[in-house]
Amino acid sequence: MAAPKALFYDVFGTLMDWRTSVARESEKILKPLGYDIDWIKFAEAWRARYQPSMEEIRAGRAPFAKLDILHRQNLETIMPQFGIAALDEPTMRELNLAWHRLTAWPDVARGMTRLRNKFLVASCSNGNIAIMADLAKFNGFAWDAILGSEVAGDFKPKPRVYLASAEAFNLAPSECMMCAAHSRDLAAAAELGLQTAHIARPDEFGPNTGEAGPTCPVDIAVGNLEELADRLGA
Amino acid sequence: MAAPKALFYDVFGTLMDWRTSVARESEKILKPLGYDIDWIKFAEAWRARYQPSMEEIRAGRAPFAKLDILHRQNLETIMPQFGIAALDEPTMRELNLAWHRLTAWPDVARGMTRLRNKFLVASCSNGNIAIMADLAKFNGFAWDAILGSEVAGDFKPKPRVYLASAEAFNLAPSECMMCAAHSRDLAAAAELGLQTAHIARPDEFGPNTGEAGPTCPVDIAVGNLEELADRLGA
Repeated sequence: MAAPKALFYDVFGTLMDWRTSVARESEKILKPLGYDIDWIKFAEAWRARYQPSMEEIRAGRAPFAKLDILHRQNLETIMPQFGIAALDEPTMRELNLAWHRLTAWPDVARGMTRLRNKFLVASCSNGNIAIMADLAKFNGFAWDAILGSEVAGDFKPKPRVYLASAEAFNLAPSECMMCAAHSRDLAAAAELGLQTAHIARPDEFGPNTGEAGPTCPVDIAVGNLEELADRLGA
Repeated sequence: MAAPKALFYDVFGTLMDWRTSVARESEKILKPLGYDIDWIKFAEAWRARYQPSMEEIRAGRAPFAKLDILHRQNLETIMPQFGIAALDEPTMRELNLAWHRLTAWPDVARGMTRLRNKFLVASCSNGNIAIMADLAKFNGFAWDAILGSEVAGDFKPKPRVYLASAEAFNLAPSECMMCAAHSRDLAAAAELGLQTAHIARPDEFGPNTGEAGPTCPVDIAVGNLEELADRLGA
């Protein structure tokens, strides 16, 4: 296996602790308005609408819409379940920006900076460009490019998303490595010839709920981005 | 005028000294093969094909193709004029990468780093994603996102390119500032409601050949990116 030239990153879960971050940001906005709910459950309910909303688009039943739009629709869907009444437009916008203010796992900024010294690093996420730009800035690292769903016009694990990302860098799939905490993402990438790295995030959905290791064959399996940098000589 | 939230950059000429860089890179590859030509004239001839090749696409006479593809076609067009015979494929590829190894004007890395601390900074260039990623890395700075032609599927000064860039950041055109050394670019952006900054690059095509100042109304006119950072309080 030749060393990859580019590393593609999944972001929600793999780099970002979306669960506690969305809970924190939602509480910050809604508690002063008098709401006192289980903020973790609120974050989980919001996230639970993520795959179903993308599935409509993947299946061709709805035109492509970027994740900021889907997040907003999904927020409106779950609010009644938590007894949250209609909020004014500025508050809704602010709440939807919770996904732009996720805190990264503690190894990410240092690991990413090391890896960017040796490789092209790009997001290959189902998140859109504005989310990806804000998350890197908020967490003190930089992308070489933001690729993934908005550039491809579809959502992972559809093949087009991985292939469009490789094409954007003028690379063959085999020159790219998909890095993710989710075996489904890695299996789809491997099928197209990308190299794969599994990053264990066992606490993604709460303590010991995430994948402690890959459930499909991968090229590298590590516990965090600093280990990945060590393994790849960055 | 409210402060912008995002700065969009033109790249060839505004940030990069393409003329002496392409001359240098071409000489590095072709001189060992026995060619001894006027390397500056070679760079200028290659660049002279730039606007005509994009015009075919802007006018709808050809489907969109990213700039790496047009550069390659334009290279093949000008080679006979310089007595350069057919080169092997690896050499042609390497030569086409001259545009990925442009040296920035001396103020760019420092100015960009200061500006990125305060604003979202993105390329809004007719160059494609791979070129933009390589140029930032080669010159020691980082984009928040690579926007422009490849994301929009058309070339400046077509309105879609500026509007798609603002949309990618979820911003109104008036919240974005186009920064360029070319008044044509700025006039097109201003017409759509973007703020504008002219950066003088009087030596773009050789000493005292570029725009020493804007030839259209702009919001800010400066001599380099550090001055722009001063003016914008970054």
